[in-house]
Amino acid sequence: MKDMVSYQFPDLTRLFAPNSLAVIGASDKEHSIGNHAMKNIVEHSRFEGRLYPINPKQERVMGLQCYPNVAALPEPVDVLVVVIPAKGVRQAIEEAGQLGVKFAVILTSGFSEADDWGRAEEAALVEISHRTGIRLYGPNCPGLVNLTMPLGMTFSPAFKDDICPGPIGLATQGGGLGRNMIQHNVRGVGYANWSSSGNECDLQVADFIHHMANDPDVKVIGCLIEGFKDGARFAAACRHAACMGKPVVGLKVGRSEYGAKAAQSHTASITGSAEVNSAVFRQLGVIEVDDLDELVDVAQLLARKLPKGDEEIAIFASSGGAASLCADTVGSYGLTLATFADKTQARLDEVLPDYAAIDNPIDTTSISISHPQAYADALLAAATDANVDLVLAPLPMDYGQYSVVNGKTLIDAQTKTDVPIVPIWMSERQGDGYHLLAKAGLVPFRSLRNMGKAVRRWIDWGGWRAGWDADWSPLLAHTGSVPAPDATRTLNEVDGKRALAGAGVPTAVPHIAGTSAGAAGLAAKMGGRLAMKIVSADIAHKSDIGGVMLDVAPADAAAGFDMIVAKVTAARPGSRIDGVLLEPMAGPDGVEAFVGVARDPVFGHMMTFGLGGIYVEMFRDVTRRMLPVTPEMARDMVADLASAPLLAGYRGQPARDLDALADLIAKVSDFVADNPDVVEMDLNPVWVGQAGEGAMALDAVIVVEA
Amino acid sequence: MKDMVSYQFPDLTRLFAPNSLAVIGASDKEHSIGNHAMKNIVEHSRFEGRLYPINPKQERVMGLQCYPNVAALPEPVDVLVVVIPAKGVRQAIEEAGQLGVKFAVILTSGFSEADDWGRAEEAALVEISHRTGIRLYGPNCPGLVNLTMPLGMTFSPAFKDDICPGPIGLATQGGGLGRNMIQHNVRGVGYANWSSSGNECDLQVADFIHHMANDPDVKVIGCLIEGFKDGARFAAACRHAACMGKPVVGLKVGRSEYGAKAAQSHTASITGSAEVNSAVFRQLGVIEVDDLDELVDVAQLLARKLPKGDEEIAIFASSGGAASLCADTVGSYGLTLATFADKTQARLDEVLPDYAAIDNPIDTTSISISHPQAYADALLAAATDANVDLVLAPLPMDYGQYSVVNGKTLIDAQTKTDVPIVPIWMSERQGDGYHLLAKAGLVPFRSLRNMGKAVRRWIDWGGWRAGWDADWSPLLAHTGSVPAPDATRTLNEVDGKRALAGAGVPTAVPHIAGTSAGAAGLAAKMGGRLAMKIVSADIAHKSDIGGVMLDVAPADAAAGFDMIVAKVTAARPGSRIDGVLLEPMAGPDGVEAFVGVARDPVFGHMMTFGLGGIYVEMFRDVTRRMLPVTPEMARDMVADLASAPLLAGYRGQPARDLDALADLIAKVSDFVADNPDVVEMDLNPVWVGQAGEGAMALDAVIVVEA
Repeated sequence: MKDMVSYQFPDLTRLFAPNSLAVIGASDKEHSIGNHAMKNIVEHSRFEGRLYPINPKQERVMGLQCYPNVAALPEPVDVLVVVIPAKGVRQAIEEAGQLGVKFAVILTSGFSEADDWGRAEEAALVEISHRTGIRLYGPNCPGLVNLTMPLGMTFSPAFKDDICPGPIGLATQGGGLGRNMIQHNVRGVGYANWSSSGNECDLQVADFIHHMANDPDVKVIGCLIEGFKDGARFAAACRHAACMGKPVVGLKVGRSEYGAKAAQSHTASITGSAEVNSAVFRQLGVIEVDDLDELVDVAQLLARKLPKGDEEIAIFASSGGAASLCADTVGSYGLTLATFADKTQARLDEVLPDYAAIDNPIDTTSISISHPQAYADALLAAATDANVDLVLAPLPMDYGQYSVVNGKTLIDAQTKTDVPIVPIWMSERQGDGYHLLAKAGLVPFRSLRNMGKAVRRWIDWGGWRAGWDADWSPLLAHTGSVPAPDATRTLNEVDGKRALAGAGVPTAVPHIAGTSAGAAGLAAKMGGRLAMKIVSADIAHKSDIGGVMLDVAPADAAAGFDMIVAKVTAARPGSRIDGVLLEPMAGPDGVEAFVGVARDPVFGHMMTFGLGGIYVEMFRDVTRRMLPVTPEMARDMVADLASAPLLAGYRGQPARDLDALADLIAKVSDFVADNPDVVEMDLNPVWVGQAGEGAMALDAVIVVEA
Repeated sequence: MKDMVSYQFPDLTRLFAPNSLAVIGASDKEHSIGNHAMKNIVEHSRFEGRLYPINPKQERVMGLQCYPNVAALPEPVDVLVVVIPAKGVRQAIEEAGQLGVKFAVILTSGFSEADDWGRAEEAALVEISHRTGIRLYGPNCPGLVNLTMPLGMTFSPAFKDDICPGPIGLATQGGGLGRNMIQHNVRGVGYANWSSSGNECDLQVADFIHHMANDPDVKVIGCLIEGFKDGARFAAACRHAACMGKPVVGLKVGRSEYGAKAAQSHTASITGSAEVNSAVFRQLGVIEVDDLDELVDVAQLLARKLPKGDEEIAIFASSGGAASLCADTVGSYGLTLATFADKTQARLDEVLPDYAAIDNPIDTTSISISHPQAYADALLAAATDANVDLVLAPLPMDYGQYSVVNGKTLIDAQTKTDVPIVPIWMSERQGDGYHLLAKAGLVPFRSLRNMGKAVRRWIDWGGWRAGWDADWSPLLAHTGSVPAPDATRTLNEVDGKRALAGAGVPTAVPHIAGTSAGAAGLAAKMGGRLAMKIVSADIAHKSDIGGVMLDVAPADAAAGFDMIVAKVTAARPGSRIDGVLLEPMAGPDGVEAFVGVARDPVFGHMMTFGLGGIYVEMFRDVTRRMLPVTPEMARDMVADLASAPLLAGYRGQPARDLDALADLIAKVSDFVADNPDVVEMDLNPVWVGQAGEGAMALDAVIVVEA
């Protein structure tokens, strides 16, 4: 196994929490973006460091001394916020770099997203960064906000309305979708900070994930990715988050061709393959979601409590319909309802009326209205049951003041247990009860479906973390580059198979005998039964004229050689004969598998595994992994398949040699790790014999860099 | 093919729009349910008919003359609303039945949902209904509301807040979940009426679906079903809705075991199998949804415009991120983006800036704020493109007054085209722009996911309706009853196969020959190659002692008979020999299928079809239909399977005899139609030969009522 390509991540502490700050483009002119940016810092933030407006046309801005340019600043500030037009940005960054400014937050648009001039200017910014060490955030971005301090390095007039400190770190590229998630603060969701890194000419989402993994204010990291600048860097950052015990929740645009095309034209970065991306996410423990609200839903639940992976659930409803539909959702998502302890059952029986349902799901009936104390007592009984890890309280409608009363009961119960009590405010009408629950941090889910998805992902992350191998790290060689077809070559079958066999991958390597004695010698060395075939460029249909013999014992190889040559010579006198090929025979009734490796433009070498073409083509029954793949991971790959029972011994068939298959897969991984110039390889079929019979690649195509 | 069991559906016109109304339990006492019920009619409805309060303790209620009991009413009213305690209900209904009252809406609880006394009382109500003709709604229900008139026959204090007339008819059982859907009125969803039929002792959801299918105020029917009282009635009502061209959208509780169990204990009706239910919905064109908001989402879209089934979509965004994510969602749900006409493209190019994206998805960029007229012009160009059937406008965040301005543009454009312009208000924050769009009837979707699901279902319904066969109606014999195992018997193989063969199902029917001459005669009659097996109760492993011969030509049957008898006699002298069985041989390399029919407790006979156990067990690759199944429907069943390519000729394999297979399936359907006492039958395997070779049931198990 190889070590991961190691990444040096920058320390972004002073970017998120600067001691000194300059704003170039700062202005007193109402409604200008330079004014918005200053107001956000001076009026809406709690920034206690040194602040320097820069504007050659003003002496003071918002009462502060103003500087004519960056070079004139009295100190190399931690962060320079840039809100001047694009044409002046290069000069400002050059001066900042020279001065020793640590970071620039470039809000200005008109760079690589716009035109050729902008692309050239952005390249020049990158060059300055490399030369002087200044790190760049943006350009073409809505800014960076630290919601814990708070500090808004942004010209957005919305900043002041969305100061909602909390445990989620959010890293996005564009601003609109990030703002969407921030606006979930109306349901009690809070954020530690939000990076929205636009064109990512230098710093990128991966850097912010890494920073947030170290940030004690962040419990959970959410990221929205329209395109990857550097897949390996992303993987390294996610691995770091896993090391720090912080879940990462990711939404990746580009799950369909329409989306990939649109995102590519929007961000000019690589969207990559949706299947590969999902496999990478899964392997790194990044929780993949399909929509913005789903990201927030699971992130906030993780922030409330990290799961163990085997959580059981209580449903606490006061309507039979809501109880049924909620139980249905729980079941549909494969979640588990807890069985209440006897004590709980007795208590529920005591406090609830006869016509209530006191099993799980609980239906208190309308006593939620008529007897609020009984409702509260029943809730506490369920929430403190030792078998219960999560309480779901589906609220089907806004019931005005009754909802407020019930909401208070939920909030009060939450103070008495650390088991999350999770309301599901199913109504589209956000009444007072909703706002009360939101304000108290109980973060109501907005539908049963969203709850089901989030709880499923929450528990799955716990399971992933419990089984996580901290010693494993991805290979990630050659990420971000796939050579064009004309820069590759395909090994011929003999060379390819020999290379595999040399790496210890059991392979049906062909050998060519020139004489019957040679055939005998090869056969003795190869051992096992053989296939023999004439080697002749002149003969197309070898078997039709006796040019093929199957299942030959080693002792019969010499005779076989003579017989084949004789038959071929008789049938096609004058043909040029280059010898006879000897190949190990696979057993007669193996299961066929395939093992492929392809280099993904974002994440580098990815392995694909499946059983036989029929399952792949009709059912898409394949699984993928980043390399390296250990034998243990190979077994997990087998278990991923719906067709896995075929290997375990299906319908009276014998069990297959899983040990040998897992070993073969791992050896293929080692082979690629040692030969990173492999662009693509396909072992198809791989024969998998009965237990003890082994596994063997029967055919192999290997494409390498030319 | 048989005619559907025909149902007489009651005319519910006067239940939904009575000319005269009495309320037993009416009261002037504040906060009593009798007072709420009266206020809802007098103060919050626009009821212009005759209203009679009934209460022996008051002379007048709300100024109206009051009657001491039902018998004292001056006329047989259309509807009697019952809000008295359970113990008095039987007497009231008896008097109403005697008087000739048409309908009773019984809000009172404490009947079959409560205890044995309640079950007996409810049975007594049903008896009165049968005897006198009064039709009963409820008991244990929140009432019936006509939102078009409006008229609220309910004690719910929420009625007055939810008067939202519109095109959706809503039929639910419980009240809480129905109220949830009604509360979608805050986003502009309107309802013609809402039935919430509680215990359904008489009238049930099916009756309301039937009524709404005839109601000109209803364009789309939504139903929420916790349990079925009568599956056949439901199917008949849905078929009627299809005849009337009105889509039905259904959410069925019980898609998981937890849900089924909870719903059963809540409603005391049968939840049935989720797989069967989904198949029935699909066959009847009922759009199945997974959550309440999804029901409303698709219903409101259908109400805006009925689809053709091939709609193409334009995305109109003003944020690159929203455009990308929306395109991604469209792609993920298999929807199609329209290609703009040249004229549209030119117009977009003209009105939008250079840096805007003028292909589909459109990203106007921030000109939505800076140049609202250009935004409006671009929108109109897209919405009036001849290739565009639906415009999606994703709005990622609440942008305060900017959102209001953009919202007005969307509303204005909608007045100029009948192509639905559909905003997606993705933010959790419901700002003024949201409320404006809602009020204008543009019904914002609340997430891209919900949009994707709804548009997919919308288009799919159009496709279903386009291919709908109005002549087909379900068999639905023996719905609602499955005999216990001890009330069934299993036909022996010979009898079962003969019965099938007699019905024209190609079957490997065994015949028993007692002599070699008999064998010759049978073989000549059967034609084709044969399998022959000794028939002896004394011999277990027939083939071990030469008791089986395969692939015997008819001419060799006599000799075969002698040889088998000789071998068996030699091996096991003294065994009792009952003859030799002759069975047609299937060809050597057929594809194996299975055809099963089972009687579902809700929907009666359902056929299941799939290919081989491996695909069923590992991939659940099966499809289901209500009977009767025509050969054309049988072909659709084949096409449903992911493994269908195996029949079409997969990977160089020959194509299979689809005609014969479809004919076999249809004949099985006919067989069950003629033999409704079939409880369960399994033809497994069914051999499917190459084109022209036919198909044949090789094994058959048939279970019938004893």
